[in-house]
Amino acid sequence: MEKTDVLIIGGGAAGIFTGRTGKLNYPEKDFLIIRLEKQILIPCAIPYLFGTLGSVEKDVIPDSLLEKAGVRLKIDEVISIDKEKKVCKTANGDEIQFEKLVLATGSFPAVPKWLKGTNLENVFTVVKDKEKLSQMLQKLKDCEKIVIVGGGFIGVEVADDLSKLKKDITIVEILPHVLMLVFDEEVAEKAEEVLKSNGIKVKTGVGIKEILGKEKVEGVLLQNGEKVEADAVILAMGYKPNTRLAEEAGIELNEFGFIKVDEYMRTSAPDVYAVGDCAEKKNFLTGKPTKVMLASIACAEARIVGMNLYGLNTIKSFNGTIGIFSTKIGNTGFGAAGLSENAAKKEGIDVVTGSFKGVDRHPGCLPGAHEQFVKLIVCKDSGLIIGGEVIGGESTGELINLIGFAIQNRMTVRSILTSQIGTHPLLTSAPTVYPIIKAAEDALKKCR
Amino acid sequence: MEKTDVLIIGGGAAGIFTGRTGKLNYPEKDFLIIRLEKQILIPCAIPYLFGTLGSVEKDVIPDSLLEKAGVRLKIDEVISIDKEKKVCKTANGDEIQFEKLVLATGSFPAVPKWLKGTNLENVFTVVKDKEKLSQMLQKLKDCEKIVIVGGGFIGVEVADDLSKLKKDITIVEILPHVLMLVFDEEVAEKAEEVLKSNGIKVKTGVGIKEILGKEKVEGVLLQNGEKVEADAVILAMGYKPNTRLAEEAGIELNEFGFIKVDEYMRTSAPDVYAVGDCAEKKNFLTGKPTKVMLASIACAEARIVGMNLYGLNTIKSFNGTIGIFSTKIGNTGFGAAGLSENAAKKEGIDVVTGSFKGVDRHPGCLPGAHEQFVKLIVCKDSGLIIGGEVIGGESTGELINLIGFAIQNRMTVRSILTSQIGTHPLLTSAPTVYPIIKAAEDALKKCR
Repeated sequence: MEKTDVLIIGGGAAGIFTGRTGKLNYPEKDFLIIRLEKQILIPCAIPYLFGTLGSVEKDVIPDSLLEKAGVRLKIDEVISIDKEKKVCKTANGDEIQFEKLVLATGSFPAVPKWLKGTNLENVFTVVKDKEKLSQMLQKLKDCEKIVIVGGGFIGVEVADDLSKLKKDITIVEILPHVLMLVFDEEVAEKAEEVLKSNGIKVKTGVGIKEILGKEKVEGVLLQNGEKVEADAVILAMGYKPNTRLAEEAGIELNEFGFIKVDEYMRTSAPDVYAVGDCAEKKNFLTGKPTKVMLASIACAEARIVGMNLYGLNTIKSFNGTIGIFSTKIGNTGFGAAGLSENAAKKEGIDVVTGSFKGVDRHPGCLPGAHEQFVKLIVCKDSGLIIGGEVIGGESTGELINLIGFAIQNRMTVRSILTSQIGTHPLLTSAPTVYPIIKAAEDALKKCR
Repeated sequence: MEKTDVLIIGGGAAGIFTGRTGKLNYPEKDFLIIRLEKQILIPCAIPYLFGTLGSVEKDVIPDSLLEKAGVRLKIDEVISIDKEKKVCKTANGDEIQFEKLVLATGSFPAVPKWLKGTNLENVFTVVKDKEKLSQMLQKLKDCEKIVIVGGGFIGVEVADDLSKLKKDITIVEILPHVLMLVFDEEVAEKAEEVLKSNGIKVKTGVGIKEILGKEKVEGVLLQNGEKVEADAVILAMGYKPNTRLAEEAGIELNEFGFIKVDEYMRTSAPDVYAVGDCAEKKNFLTGKPTKVMLASIACAEARIVGMNLYGLNTIKSFNGTIGIFSTKIGNTGFGAAGLSENAAKKEGIDVVTGSFKGVDRHPGCLPGAHEQFVKLIVCKDSGLIIGGEVIGGESTGELINLIGFAIQNRMTVRSILTSQIGTHPLLTSAPTVYPIIKAAEDALKKCR
């Protein structure tokens, strides 16, 4: 029987990063990753294969990262886990004994069972699989009319990227706006505006009823009776955690079907961990399970496991998952961290918000200037920052990280107002109108 | 005699922002700004007048900002302060009685007295004066060979911007590298590399001895005997606090000639405050006075005064000045926050550093990708982050602000390692190689 110290099932971002961080912290231990796929893709860049990268080859994560880190890799599929004997069986017939097991089995596209026509030709989901994506890429080249079902991040990003190929694209979203699980109305509306200005049709507040066609897809029928013609349909209706192995091994799942974990990603089984999309996330404020899946969260979790496999060495200073999102639609960046105003109100939290609209250069007539908007969501009682949303230019990703740091460091509107920041004409807003501080100022007025 | 509640002397960033924040917090009080200049410029954008903006008009801060805020403005010059009677006299012969006085008198270019030739035609300093800058702009158009004395931020930024006009530009810097007061060698060297790749000549480790010429400047003589021909010379040898008024009024200055203040910008005289370049700054770690001058710091100080004029309402959560700098040379951003490795070692602090070089997109082949480098300076004993330096693309300004927030929130390498961040292919590095976290990982190895 083969033996290893730490066996990691799954070679996506969570698996790779657990291996690398683990080996760094426990160099004397043997780390083995088992994965099914011959090659692995950078997951977040998959939407940009269609119009920007143009080839899956450009999105491959090189295995040399693992070799360099001294982490072993095996292409195989684990078919069962014996958590008492600490042994995994593989599809190739191997048995592997482990000291610690990390489940990094990821997620797969959710396709509702009631939806007819999902098996028609040219109906796609966005899978993290190089071969399937390669075929999809090839086939989409010949399609003119493309309907994307679901206006979450994947749907919106794929639509935006496909629009660069001048296709006729329609997004169908059942919620009142795209990206509404993360953003409040004013930001989601701006996202729709940018999509529309790039020629993308956006149908919101209406779900899909059926996918139409005989062998090949011909269109979709919406719940309101409208038919939309299509040469291709892309289903972007969310993802589900891949937990079959864990469930069969008797490891506890939560009410949403994620593998239950504590703050150090330890499952109900001793010496078994779960990280990434398959692992439970809890909201940082309420402690309730949430369904958020992000590679950046997977990496944060992988880091925690990698540092704490053999004893809790690195205690977290912040518990729960904030969820820090960023994306770019056309030339406009969008970011969100923590709770939106809507989400906070749904939880019954007494919040005020502050917002500010400015420009990310000073003076605003400088080349490359982009409109910038920041909204902060603040607990009225304590002044604690619990969420933020950003619209802006190229710096949006780091600006939302700044709000993320404010949340993680339990900053209040008052500590934001006494904060020091740096500014530069070609890189940021003016210091007099720095958007996070101006938004805090606006929120403070309402706290009073 | 005219009366006001809060009299602010100086209408630059510090003065404007004190007025605006003050009026917001004390709407019942009368705020009056007295300034000499008819129009005020955005100070940090002055270097970009030369090759990018092309006209001083584009850099004017509109006075409507004050009108809208309900802050009164008077164009006049205060010539004396009676701090006991609380009265200022002006050049126009007016007397103004105040309850609170805010000195926001700024700074002026430092020109060494020993330096010969500073009065020659076409020898300039970079003053915050619209008329003088307008003349300078006009005259520089006809100059081919330009020598810039001083390779600090102003010198480097003016050189970079003038290079867009294809002038023959030489920077002379007495220190071993440009920007060495803020950056460590590896970052300063990269800045020089970018300057040189844009055709700018950089002479370091050598000071100026004399400015040559009869009526008009003809060149400079360096300390090593070398002569450099010049049609124009720009002196960018630092700035001095403008404190004559304060000194004459008997308000205490510190050893560097800045107006002494406490953490709430209160001077030695009751009800008299100082903010911005004229006011003392203390290093956040050592408490020692430092000479840093930045509009962003002026604004942070103005905010503190504006919130606390009548009683300390908003207590600071972080004392001292960090100094968060960012700039862009060519297409490359540079940022620094807190102490450099050199500065920390000079203070006798036992530090380790961690660094990481990556790309600000993922995969790195995406359009717009820029190399990204982060260095963290860490107290070896406590793991506390006390400084950081960044090289990168458009997001550099906010990335260095993120490090600034880490310092202000007293984050350690371990709290960085357990932090959550957001990433996106088109906006940030990959989550697996997020540069601040990777640099923290590198630093932690050396702490052990």
